[in-house]
Amino acid sequence: MRTVEEHLSRVLSLGSRLPAEPCPVGDGFGRVLAEDLAAVVAVPPFDNSAMDGFAVRAEDLAVGASLRVVGDIPAGATAVPRVGAGEAARIMTGAPMPPGADTVVPVEQTDQPMGAVSLPESVRVSAVVPLGRHVRRAGEDVAVGAQGLSAGQRWSPAAASSAASLGHGVVPLVARPRVSILATGSELVAAGRPLGFGQIPDSNSLLLSGLCRQWGAEVVSAVAVDDEPANFRAALTEALAADLVLTSGGVSVGAFEVVRQVVEGEVVFDKVAMQPGKPQASGLLTAPDGRRVPMLGLPGNPVSVFVSAWAFARPLIARLGGWDEEWRSVSMLALRGWKGPEGRRQFTPVRITADGVMPVHTLGSGSHLVASLALADGLAVVTEEATSVAPGDAVAVHPVGL
Amino acid sequence: MRTVEEHLSRVLSLGSRLPAEPCPVGDGFGRVLAEDLAAVVAVPPFDNSAMDGFAVRAEDLAVGASLRVVGDIPAGATAVPRVGAGEAARIMTGAPMPPGADTVVPVEQTDQPMGAVSLPESVRVSAVVPLGRHVRRAGEDVAVGAQGLSAGQRWSPAAASSAASLGHGVVPLVARPRVSILATGSELVAAGRPLGFGQIPDSNSLLLSGLCRQWGAEVVSAVAVDDEPANFRAALTEALAADLVLTSGGVSVGAFEVVRQVVEGEVVFDKVAMQPGKPQASGLLTAPDGRRVPMLGLPGNPVSVFVSAWAFARPLIARLGGWDEEWRSVSMLALRGWKGPEGRRQFTPVRITADGVMPVHTLGSGSHLVASLALADGLAVVTEEATSVAPGDAVAVHPVGL
Repeated sequence: MRTVEEHLSRVLSLGSRLPAEPCPVGDGFGRVLAEDLAAVVAVPPFDNSAMDGFAVRAEDLAVGASLRVVGDIPAGATAVPRVGAGEAARIMTGAPMPPGADTVVPVEQTDQPMGAVSLPESVRVSAVVPLGRHVRRAGEDVAVGAQGLSAGQRWSPAAASSAASLGHGVVPLVARPRVSILATGSELVAAGRPLGFGQIPDSNSLLLSGLCRQWGAEVVSAVAVDDEPANFRAALTEALAADLVLTSGGVSVGAFEVVRQVVEGEVVFDKVAMQPGKPQASGLLTAPDGRRVPMLGLPGNPVSVFVSAWAFARPLIARLGGWDEEWRSVSMLALRGWKGPEGRRQFTPVRITADGVMPVHTLGSGSHLVASLALADGLAVVTEEATSVAPGDAVAVHPVGL
Repeated sequence: MRTVEEHLSRVLSLGSRLPAEPCPVGDGFGRVLAEDLAAVVAVPPFDNSAMDGFAVRAEDLAVGASLRVVGDIPAGATAVPRVGAGEAARIMTGAPMPPGADTVVPVEQTDQPMGAVSLPESVRVSAVVPLGRHVRRAGEDVAVGAQGLSAGQRWSPAAASSAASLGHGVVPLVARPRVSILATGSELVAAGRPLGFGQIPDSNSLLLSGLCRQWGAEVVSAVAVDDEPANFRAALTEALAADLVLTSGGVSVGAFEVVRQVVEGEVVFDKVAMQPGKPQASGLLTAPDGRRVPMLGLPGNPVSVFVSAWAFARPLIARLGGWDEEWRSVSMLALRGWKGPEGRRQFTPVRITADGVMPVHTLGSGSHLVASLALADGLAVVTEEATSVAPGDAVAVHPVGL
């Protein structure tokens, strides 16, 4: 059996960072900035007032001085008056400084009231402010050409806001990984459809597509496909239009393991020392357009799918998308005990509470396995050496919430 | 001045949970299940095998017993053979149990090899398994009508998977809050467009729309509007088609505060004891269709927008969407010190490292204010009583990452 680390290392070797592509600043959240971003406009782009007040010449200032008001400068003003000796212009925060003026006296330091009052003919200054005070100079935050955002920045609302201020409408972001999902099994029918004899609803394609979207991937297709090798091969060929193919089921050792039957030899089938999730397939397949596309074949049980996807698909998606992916575990108290297998790392879906964690399958009176996974907000990871967790033990918990 | 809690309490009083609507199980992640969800199909829907092996009659089992193989039952089989005395049917995990059989002998406990081998004429049993072993009974996980998922469940990939297994294709989820965003300011032009005299790029509509989407809201419109009251009133009337209107700018005490000019009297303008984010407007406006729609008027500075949105818009969106919203603060070490105002709660964007936090505006050689917010993954919250944070102090940090 391979260790979890060995398998992860193999999985990560299957992919590398996707190319960058231009993206509107307000889209692409979660993607990664591919290049340093310099300012194409200065920030601020022009000298402007930092306060609501009066733009003046500092040399005219004295306590009690009265200045003639020559105009009004709201933010966005396209024409501004010239301020001469003994003059002032009313100015709003962010509005362009008028020629002639070098200093702003806040309205609070004048005889004028705050708020939407009509423009006075003159203003009396009640305090002297030094030359240049309350004036933001063009480029004082960022000069044109200076670096603003660094390559590797994960795209976020704040990054979009910054990029816009730096003059960018479109930015180079690493492509969002496109994932195709194939849930295998002749017994599967789409959610909500009537079940015939021997049929069950396909839940894995929903689980995997939801997780991939949660992790920032684009799901280009997510369908169930039956165990007929020709059908699986056809669906797989279509799926290879994506950057990554995930399958569920068909990787074990039964007589009708369609994934194994179709791609054994092209991809590797491993036993990984973990529970759940022991059978894992991984490799590169050649797409019709000649690209080599990574494929991960996950087991079919929903909890195995969930755990395998977190352990292997998520890091590979991050590798393709170009962002760092850490397996952030937090040490928490086990509120109930549970057993684990020797020699395999155990991943147990748990609910995180203020007091500690408990396995979700022990929750609720029904203890419905099928519904319990929805209660999980963490995966407790128990080492290969341990065979049980006792109440009060510290366990490593990886958050898996939305 | 109102306290942060007083303002938050007022903001939360403006909204209540939106109605539920039917949603396909594979969509609607982040939304809230509005009603308990019972199983409409049993889980599993039929007696099936838990192992790859042979379906037999327990009474025929003895070490070394040879049974005649009457057929092959893959998962999804639509016809199954009857198993009589002294007979067995090869069966795969998840495949329906054939009539006559009551027990499954795993392939490992027979003389047959694992994998895709042809159907043998007979099978020799190497171990006796008890009656009923390795058979999953119809409904043993969830019976039809039993409760599966509980109202209040935040919709997630695992919830979608569970709901599908319970027979649901469509589920009642609380509506996703629809938000309209108006960034006010005659100086604003759309990101990437050339700047005229006195103009700056609109960054706040990108920041707010990104944050709202990050929090699970649907942004129905996000535009800049100038400071002409008639234009703002017209844009606001359109914006009221949403469940919540957020504005930035125009709430302060200058001479051209368009939000204040247009809606003062309808909504309340407050000073909140926080930094940044002191001026805040909040209230209910009447939409053209008669609905009373909450509006929050945030200040115009990008850091104020960011902080006010996290502090007030996010909890209100959660209230509308029906999910719990906790302000989860974690105590972390300050790696650098900074000053704060007395009597106002201070929210400082910080970068979180393994060692502790530091204010983002002190990071990097350029210390560009405009770019620094993109580096924040936390908000450090300093109480009204404190006027400074020293290196080594513990501070409460609220995560704000993607």
